[in-house]
Amino acid sequence: MTNPENPSSGSPAPAKAPARDPWELPDVSGLVVGVLGGTGDQGRGLAYRLAKAGQKVVIGSRSAERAQAAADELGHGVEGADNAECARRSDIVIVAVPWEGHARTLEALRADLAGKLVVDCVNPLGFDKQGAYALAVEEGSAAQQAAALLPDSRVTAAFHHLSAVLLQDPDVAEIDTDVLVLGESRADTDVVQALASRIPGMRGVFGGRLRNAHQVEALVANLISVNRRYKAHAGLRVTDV
Amino acid sequence: MTNPENPSSGSPAPAKAPARDPWELPDVSGLVVGVLGGTGDQGRGLAYRLAKAGQKVVIGSRSAERAQAAADELGHGVEGADNAECARRSDIVIVAVPWEGHARTLEALRADLAGKLVVDCVNPLGFDKQGAYALAVEEGSAAQQAAALLPDSRVTAAFHHLSAVLLQDPDVAEIDTDVLVLGESRADTDVVQALASRIPGMRGVFGGRLRNAHQVEALVANLISVNRRYKAHAGLRVTDV
Repeated sequence: MTNPENPSSGSPAPAKAPARDPWELPDVSGLVVGVLGGTGDQGRGLAYRLAKAGQKVVIGSRSAERAQAAADELGHGVEGADNAECARRSDIVIVAVPWEGHARTLEALRADLAGKLVVDCVNPLGFDKQGAYALAVEEGSAAQQAAALLPDSRVTAAFHHLSAVLLQDPDVAEIDTDVLVLGESRADTDVVQALASRIPGMRGVFGGRLRNAHQVEALVANLISVNRRYKAHAGLRVTDV
Repeated sequence: MTNPENPSSGSPAPAKAPARDPWELPDVSGLVVGVLGGTGDQGRGLAYRLAKAGQKVVIGSRSAERAQAAADELGHGVEGADNAECARRSDIVIVAVPWEGHARTLEALRADLAGKLVVDCVNPLGFDKQGAYALAVEEGSAAQQAAALLPDSRVTAAFHHLSAVLLQDPDVAEIDTDVLVLGESRADTDVVQALASRIPGMRGVFGGRLRNAHQVEALVANLISVNRRYKAHAGLRVTDV
């Protein structure tokens, strides 16, 4: 018999443990959120939305000055620091760096990210005349690469399908999308779901283990096709949940 | 300058060609739809919904007798035939066979499927104790494998994220989900979008080229995780379109 809540658990669950309510999520309002790559469009957008929702946010960049300048623009108490200090000061660290710098950035921050809950939202994409396409990643996905490079961190994946345009637009009150959250530990994915759900309109939905992160990252290529065809800023909703 | 409607086009579009309304889709009500693997859960569910919506449907199976028996159960004018006859009699052929038999089945039907609009909805997945995961496919995806095996057919991909349970439940009046439709030719994807949109609640949305089919197929592994966690029959909606 497998335990449907945790089929990989080494020890069997009590035979009649009641199923936990998947929407009962922890209070994360007191946690500090760092955003590596926080001066990029996606990072800035996320930092803005989380800070506006009342979260303490520190954005990181290679240059502390640029991080501070971006933080000042964002307001809502956002602070800026270099990436290492951003990591050290944060409980949850969102990785929003360009794919090109992903491995190098994380490798350099291994010690600073030890013990942290890391949320990878990087989409390894290539672009040519026909549009966007998914890049092959040796580890399987950006999130799995992060997990391989950060053995002392708790790595999750989320926030892939957000429109940086909508996130940064102060006239947009609600972000009409679900956020698929992937990870190996329910405690960790619950925290990230709770964080996503703090942003009005947004909802964090558990989306599986990290080995299934590739397709979630790669689906951004399809959303780019959707955006081009429909002149939209597409997001995703999971129905029946 | 790239033409945003067709960036791969060899010849440039007229400078001020008005953008076509992406929701202006052809009338497909007179087309015959075949469903290869029409005796399986997914195939039967799709055949049932399309026939109920007024489409002429022929389900195919290796055995004409089993196809006919399933067709009789489904009602709504559904007919049964062996796979080759199903293909020959249809204008649009939905491929809903198990991944294990995908290549072999299509190879054997190459001549019968020549000139047809093929809609691949197969999800190459593996299963173990931790749940479902995406299988690597040499051609990139099931849809690309179909395109490679069927050089004389027009291959598209769609209908990946449907719950066979909901499709087959006569008490479910509407299927609350969008259908991402992928393909190389707008004429073909428009037809498949129109077909999906005939089913109440369902909407066909263009989702990119076949090279981006892998992640759409593989995302079913994530939806299986969603279904397990939330005890749901999850589908997807694209927001802002």
